[in-house]
Amino acid sequence: MLNRYNLIAGQSIERLAAISDGVFAVAMTLLVLDLHTPEAAHIHSEAALWQAVVALAPRVLVYLMSFLTLGIFWVGQQTQLNHLERSDRNYTWLHLAFLFAVSLMPFSTSLMAEFISYRVALIAYWLNILLLGVILYVAWVYAFRTRLGKPDVSQEIDEAVRRRIIGAQSLYAFGAALCIINTYWALGFMLLVQLNYALAPRIRFLSRL
Amino acid sequence: MLNRYNLIAGQSIERLAAISDGVFAVAMTLLVLDLHTPEAAHIHSEAALWQAVVALAPRVLVYLMSFLTLGIFWVGQQTQLNHLERSDRNYTWLHLAFLFAVSLMPFSTSLMAEFISYRVALIAYWLNILLLGVILYVAWVYAFRTRLGKPDVSQEIDEAVRRRIIGAQSLYAFGAALCIINTYWALGFMLLVQLNYALAPRIRFLSRL
Amino acid sequence: MLNRYNLIAGQSIERLAAISDGVFAVAMTLLVLDLHTPEAAHIHSEAALWQAVVALAPRVLVYLMSFLTLGIFWVGQQTQLNHLERSDRNYTWLHLAFLFAVSLMPFSTSLMAEFISYRVALIAYWLNILLLGVILYVAWVYAFRTRLGKPDVSQEIDEAVRRRIIGAQSLYAFGAALCIINTYWALGFMLLVQLNYALAPRIRFLSRL
Amino acid sequence: MLNRYNLIAGQSIERLAAISDGVFAVAMTLLVLDLHTPEAAHIHSEAALWQAVVALAPRVLVYLMSFLTLGIFWVGQQTQLNHLERSDRNYTWLHLAFLFAVSLMPFSTSLMAEFISYRVALIAYWLNILLLGVILYVAWVYAFRTRLGKPDVSQEIDEAVRRRIIGAQSLYAFGAALCIINTYWALGFMLLVQLNYALAPRIRFLSRL
Repeated sequence: MLNRYNLIAGQSIERLAAISDGVFAVAMTLLVLDLHTPEAAHIHSEAALWQAVVALAPRVLVYLMSFLTLGIFWVGQQTQLNHLERSDRNYTWLHLAFLFAVSLMPFSTSLMAEFISYRVALIAYWLNILLLGVILYVAWVYAFRTRLGKPDVSQEIDEAVRRRIIGAQSLYAFGAALCIINTYWALGFMLLVQLNYALAPRIRFLSRL
Repeated sequence: MLNRYNLIAGQSIERLAAISDGVFAVAMTLLVLDLHTPEAAHIHSEAALWQAVVALAPRVLVYLMSFLTLGIFWVGQQTQLNHLERSDRNYTWLHLAFLFAVSLMPFSTSLMAEFISYRVALIAYWLNILLLGVILYVAWVYAFRTRLGKPDVSQEIDEAVRRRIIGAQSLYAFGAALCIINTYWALGFMLLVQLNYALAPRIRFLSRL
Repeated sequence: MLNRYNLIAGQSIERLAAISDGVFAVAMTLLVLDLHTPEAAHIHSEAALWQAVVALAPRVLVYLMSFLTLGIFWVGQQTQLNHLERSDRNYTWLHLAFLFAVSLMPFSTSLMAEFISYRVALIAYWLNILLLGVILYVAWVYAFRTRLGKPDVSQEIDEAVRRRIIGAQSLYAFGAALCIINTYWALGFMLLVQLNYALAPRIRFLSRL
Repeated sequence: MLNRYNLIAGQSIERLAAISDGVFAVAMTLLVLDLHTPEAAHIHSEAALWQAVVALAPRVLVYLMSFLTLGIFWVGQQTQLNHLERSDRNYTWLHLAFLFAVSLMPFSTSLMAEFISYRVALIAYWLNILLLGVILYVAWVYAFRTRLGKPDVSQEIDEAVRRRIIGAQSLYAFGAALCIINTYWALGFMLLVQLNYALAPRIRFLSRL
């Protein structure tokens, strides 16, 4: 006797997309709560307010970085879901695991920004990105093998999606490895990778990765 | 004279799904706010940062557990809604009650994690799970009797859904009862049940429950 | 020359429903943040934990009340949007005003619960409910006059929707007026009204309101 | 060899709309968290509670202003997305940048309200509005040139959308420039502009902008 419940559970791509958008939206805006207006009692001139606002710049930058990373993976997940016709319970749970990793991202980013010269923080940040990549990759392979995809998902698209994840993760791993020199090199390289994926400049070499 | 308003109120399955995804998404990410980066003033070496991050592990575990429980019930609710053609106001209110119980879950989980050796905390946690199960069950029975389901919802599917809820709740209740020995046995058993539903291993005995 | 932009702006019922579900979902779960687990340092026995949990009961009740009120108006708004074919920019702004009032509800409820014997708090709570009702009513009348409704929206449905809002608001207003005696009578009556709309008991007299 | 991944990434208008609604909903409700009920210990009469509630009025006003601004840009984004048939990855990233600016709005508004007489705060607030306008404009021009629009998007609609953004931004810029006199004039003018767009009064001159 088969387990009928598991055969009928978690089949809606729309619901999966909807809860993903919810989790991404909350995760993307959570770090804004760390931006507090300066204490009015300490500000007595335009110059003082200007300095207080400038002093918030690092936090805004961290927030921007977190937003960037989440944006990249949101686009990646969207692209994957767009090519599927239906889901099943295993695929749904893979994406719930993905969303768990998504919701940890603001914390990892914030940890790295706070301890920018510490390898532990950089490795934690990289592990979070790795986790996101691995789950997305496994989910795609699973979907392709279980024939959850739309009829028009060709071998070519399959390869494009997989090459993109592996290419990106290789660059991130190389970046993380640069922390052997120091964390600034590692972080700088990883940021360049992220900007590359967000801005998609028309550089021949990079656009193939 | 009938109450016409009640006949036309709350009929949209799509809106019900949308607000559910919103409440689940917020509830799933709320506990992340408890993860604070360690105080920079107290950290002076890689080893110290490593220890501080490791010290956060229990909170991450609690968060994972809460995410797991909410994931299980999100899949359960989704499966139920997928089989319905329309809603009515009673069914809508049953699900609003369900969402209320959902939004309490992060608190129950956090309470249990903080007071892991206390039976009161474990019982509160179990009552929350019981409440979620009871409402889902009542909602399904109501939907089936009121013929809100799609034409292809067979007796077989009805039985599969009901058996799943009763099976799961029996296991949870048995787990909670283990707190007669102590709370660690109870909690361990309940965690195994949850992992079973999330991972759905192909174990013959378990997959029938 | 007509203002073309205003003719093409804000026409999507789907987007209006989606942002409404988002605001309702966040507002519905915001008050949970007020539920903090008791301090572990002060708890040394099962009895102490039990008392600490019981001490949280009033907050849970406030949260339940807020959830109930928001649920009632969510069903009301859903019912209204379900009968429309499209929106326009005026209708969209009426609902944005409605959402503003929605997002104030957790604050009003919490204020009333904290100052349960004060007329000021009760009046503030009632004004919030009144505001929600007035905007919903105006939006419906506007939609009906501007022919935004679906072709099958009959005079009968129009009357049912309007009678429901006026009936409910009359009961709330009567309840609020009871604060001439004292706030407990007023609050008790308003809670009964809310339970009536949530549970919809088959009482002949009430079901006509 | 083309980069196939970029050709297939980020094409869903529905997902873009959904994450936008999520970010807007969270941003719109974030500032409510700043409304705290007065401390019960300090309140001993109806008059004292009344004063405490009145003392919250400025915060409610700030919240209303933030809600208004976000509402205007939500309607603007919705109008733009409604006219598109599909998205591509560049358009998607333009909107993610837009959402980043959206999520900063509660902070900018709050900064301006706290430091109402400081030019730095007013300029920061205006820069946020400018950023929102510029991204929306660029996104529209990009969408029109890349033929992402629906077949029925005429030259006329293109002009109406662009004229609206440029008209609004000119008024905001003029308002911000009034801070040469003082910030109250600037702020007052900008608020009038916002009310004009929210209420859309039938004033011949304004309705053309």
